[in-house]
This record gives sequence, structure tokens and C-alpha cells, in this order.
Amino acid sequence: MFKQISIIGCGLIGSSILRSINKKKIYDKVVVFDKSKEVLSFLNKKNLANNTCENINQAVHDADLIIIAAPLSSYKEIILSIKENLKKNCILTDTGSAKKEVNKIIQNLNLKNISWIASHPIAGTEDSGPKAGFAELFDNRWCILSPSENSKKEDVIKLQKFWESIGSKVKIMSFEEHDHILSLTSHLPHAIAYNIVRTSINNENKHRKDIIQYSAGGLRDFTRIASSEPLMWRDIFIDNSENILKVLDDFSTNLEEMKKAIKDKNGEKLIKIFTETKDVRKEIIKAGQDTEKTDFGRKKN
Amino acid sequence: MFKQISIIGCGLIGSSILRSINKKKIYDKVVVFDKSKEVLSFLNKKNLANNTCENINQAVHDADLIIIAAPLSSYKEIILSIKENLKKNCILTDTGSAKKEVNKIIQNLNLKNISWIASHPIAGTEDSGPKAGFAELFDNRWCILSPSENSKKEDVIKLQKFWESIGSKVKIMSFEEHDHILSLTSHLPHAIAYNIVRTSINNENKHRKDIIQYSAGGLRDFTRIASSEPLMWRDIFIDNSENILKVLDDFSTNLEEMKKAIKDKNGEKLIKIFTETKDVRKEIIKAGQDTEKTDFGRKKN
Repeated sequence: MFKQISIIGCGLIGSSILRSINKKKIYDKVVVFDKSKEVLSFLNKKNLANNTCENINQAVHDADLIIIAAPLSSYKEIILSIKENLKKNCILTDTGSAKKEVNKIIQNLNLKNISWIASHPIAGTEDSGPKAGFAELFDNRWCILSPSENSKKEDVIKLQKFWESIGSKVKIMSFEEHDHILSLTSHLPHAIAYNIVRTSINNENKHRKDIIQYSAGGLRDFTRIASSEPLMWRDIFIDNSENILKVLDDFSTNLEEMKKAIKDKNGEKLIKIFTETKDVRKEIIKAGQDTEKTDFGRKKN
Repeated sequence: MFKQISIIGCGLIGSSILRSINKKKIYDKVVVFDKSKEVLSFLNKKNLANNTCENINQAVHDADLIIIAAPLSSYKEIILSIKENLKKNCILTDTGSAKKEVNKIIQNLNLKNISWIASHPIAGTEDSGPKAGFAELFDNRWCILSPSENSKKEDVIKLQKFWESIGSKVKIMSFEEHDHILSLTSHLPHAIAYNIVRTSINNENKHRKDIIQYSAGGLRDFTRIASSEPLMWRDIFIDNSENILKVLDDFSTNLEEMKKAIKDKNGEKLIKIFTETKDVRKEIIKAGQDTEKTDFGRKKN
């Protein structure tokens, strides 16, 4: 389908795409660029890439599909570097978690004869870097595509097939819908996880050591979420700040309501809150986004 | 060590204690009381208990160790019912997640010749009821004991050995320390998880279905925590309200600071916040409270 695919940036996501393509042997030529020589030498040493390239222009100039899998804050520099060297009618995509800024960049550049279609594979772990990648990362996970005004319909189908070929399920929605939905399902939980860990593990608390020791009662699960890559999350919070600030305000309003119920020892209100959220869990299991199997208590299999 | 152990209340925790005792065959006689006939008939049907008892006084009168494994809000009724029928020098304990109210109850009753030592096994899942229990629930998990002024030293050692015999590691601390530490490690994360789910899955949001569909990006993990037993959490929040309100206020202060950083697009500040919490994760892994293994991305083994 694509004679050449170029991956720009080869951390957790980029290297997982590479590993998945390698494993499935579906594309002949994959060229990998990363600004870190260490990353490229790791890929060569592990025989993960046949074509690594230290020059970003050389990496993209023959590609039918270019995937930017680098931090959001590096997009502008990357796109400015490659824009003159893109092949006519190539598809340009990315893997970022927020879409507002990249869209502005692309619009301002007014690229001709390029199909810009944003991608967001909703997959990842709290680890980062090429060593953390694995071929199955996208298996059965959603990938959201947001076509631009100029992207051709057949290109959207081609890109959809690409993501499906490495295991993803694809959903198409607008940039705006993407940023709104992700602010609720992903950005809010991450913001809050960071805040919980900061609040609990306060260096001035004389029980700090005990708090870490007994973290299994809920806190532990937040520390995993709150140990995700700081640079990536800085970029997301700045990029999608409007949506995130709105949901954080809603969150604060709900929190004040809960505080009031606790202060008033209003058991009825508390049960109402807790029962609502318990029901949501059932819907998520029904939607196939998780299993009923208990693993919060780390039951051994 | 104990000729008779009586378990009052046989849900997730009570039935897991029972299953663990059965599996390890270390105590001859275990009597189980539950106010629900359905629960008792389940235990009989599954051959989990040799001695079930519909009368709470009969259940306790010959016991050397009585374990209350019922909701916090039922403690007063239970203790008032059994107080005249307790064997001289027996040990009375519980499994509750908050210790302030039960301690007041016991102090006011001024029980003679009874060793009251609170227990809190930090173990559980988001499920509840006797069907959800399993023998390994306490394996390698902490159990916090809080002796009262009147509890004899040798009784504390006996109770410690009991918890160790069913797999727990034991730590002894005061009621006050317990309630403070747990407000941070467990009660705060649960309060926040409920609030996240309420904020994200708002019934009025036209994208509600999509939000559930794409919950894998962080939200899903909170819905699991937020699907814990509502009655149990109501009791904890009311019982430990002072500590919880204090940490929720600290949380709000930290959240406002983060909102400001997002509003100002202060990337440096955001990275500082995210890096601090990433470091905490390493300490938790070092303390043996979790593994380095990635499971946030649900990597298949």
C-alpha cells in the first residue's frame, strides 16, 4: 500500500509502530529518523530498523506515509524542516494526544498536495523511549483519525487500513471533538493523578515513609499514572489548555459538593455520588474497555 | 492459639479470612455470623463454614478471638449486642478502614476484661460480598494493628501472629496515626476517583458514549477505584471526615496551583510538578508496594 513509510521520532510509540510493522512484515521499506544518535544506534544494534537516517530531509523525501511520533512541542520545527522535501500526494500524520496547535501550524503553512490527517493511537504505558516499545501496543486499541479539509477521502481510507494493519481499531472524528473527549478521558485523569501524588507524598509530612509503605490502598494506582513522561504531559496541557481548564473547573465544583456532603455528614448524598460512579464502571466493561476481572487487589492468577 | 474464632459479618473481607483459615487448616473452630440468611446459606452450600450461626450472641460467647468484618456503621449495634456475652479475656478486633468512631464506642462502653485491638488489613478489591472473597487476599499485604490502652501486650502479639498466619505483614501504630496515614493513601484517592468519574461521565455531555468508548487513556483505571462499595465508603468518609476534609483542602490548593501553571502556559512549572511525582513512583517500587512491570497499557503476558 505504501512503498515507503518514514517514522520521525522513535520513542515508545514510534518504536512500537516499527516493531509491529517488522513483526507483521507488511511494508517493504521503513525509514526511521530520530534526532538522538543514541536512539538510532539502539535500533541498529537490535536490528529493529534496516534504514535509519540522521538527516530528516533525506528520511522523508521518498515517503508515501510520514508519521511524526515526536513530542508535540517539536512539531513546528519538524514540519518546517521537512515541508520542502515532502513527496507530492504523500500522507502526513502524527501520533500526538492534542490536535489544536498542530492544526494551526499546518493551516498557516498552507501545504500543497499533501494529505494531512492527524492520528492519535490511544495506547501507551507509563514508560518512554525506544526500549519501552513493543509490537502489540496497538492491538485492539482505538486510534482516532482527524482528517483536515484538504485530506482526500481515499487517503483517509489508506491511513485507516495502515492503523488496522498494526492492530488498531479506527474511529474518525473532528479535531475539536478529539480534544474535547480526550480532555475528559485522559488529560483530566492525568492532571488529577499528579495532584493526588503531590498532595499525599508531601516531603514535610513526618509520616512520609509510612505513606509510601501503605500505598496499596488506592494511592499506588495513581502513582503509576503520575509517572508518565513529564515532557509529553507538559506539551499536552499547554496544547489543550482551554479544554483542560474547563474540565478542571467542573472537577473543582464537584469536589466542593462532595466536601460539603462530608462536612454535613450527609450519608444519603455520599451514597448517591458513589452509586452513580459504580454504574459507570458497568458501562465501561460493557463497552469492552476493561474486564470484570479484579486486578485492583492484585489477585495472582 | 485460639480455641474458637468468631467472624461477625462475612462479605469480601470476612469470607477471605474464612477461606484463608480453611486453606491453611490452622484453627479448629471458626464460627460465622452474618445478619443475612442468604450469606449463611451460601457459606453452607459451598462448604466454607462448619459453624454458621444466626444468633450473634451464641456466635461470640465461646470465642477467644472475635473479628468484626462488617460495615463501620453497624459496629455500634454489633458491639452493644455482644458486649454482655463476651468471654473473659477474649480479644476483640475488627477490619475497618477508619478507627475514630469505633474507639469512641469502645471507650464509652468501658468494657472490662476484654482486649480491644483494632485491625485494618489493607487488602480488598472493588468487589464485595462473600462470593468475591479468596484465600490469598491477605498474602504479603499490610495489616495495621492499633492497640487500645487496655490491650495486653501478649494479646497484641497473639493477634499479630493470627494475621501473619493468614499471610499478612503486620505494623503497629496508634489510631490517630492510622486515620491520618490512611486518609492520604486510601481515602483521598477514592474521593478523587469518584469525582473524576462524575466529572468525565456527565450525563448531559453529548459525547458521553464516546467518553466511555475511549476511556482506556487513564479514566478506565479510576472507574475501577470508583466502583468500590458505596456503603463502605460512606461510612469511611463520615468516620474519618476531619482528616479527609483536611487533605481535600490541601488537594484543592495544589490543584489551583496547577491550573494557574496551565493558564499561564508555564511549562517549567508543569515539568517540575510532573517530575516530582515520577520520582515518588520509584520510591514506591523500591518499598516493594508495586512492580516496575508495565500494566497500565495492559500489555499481555
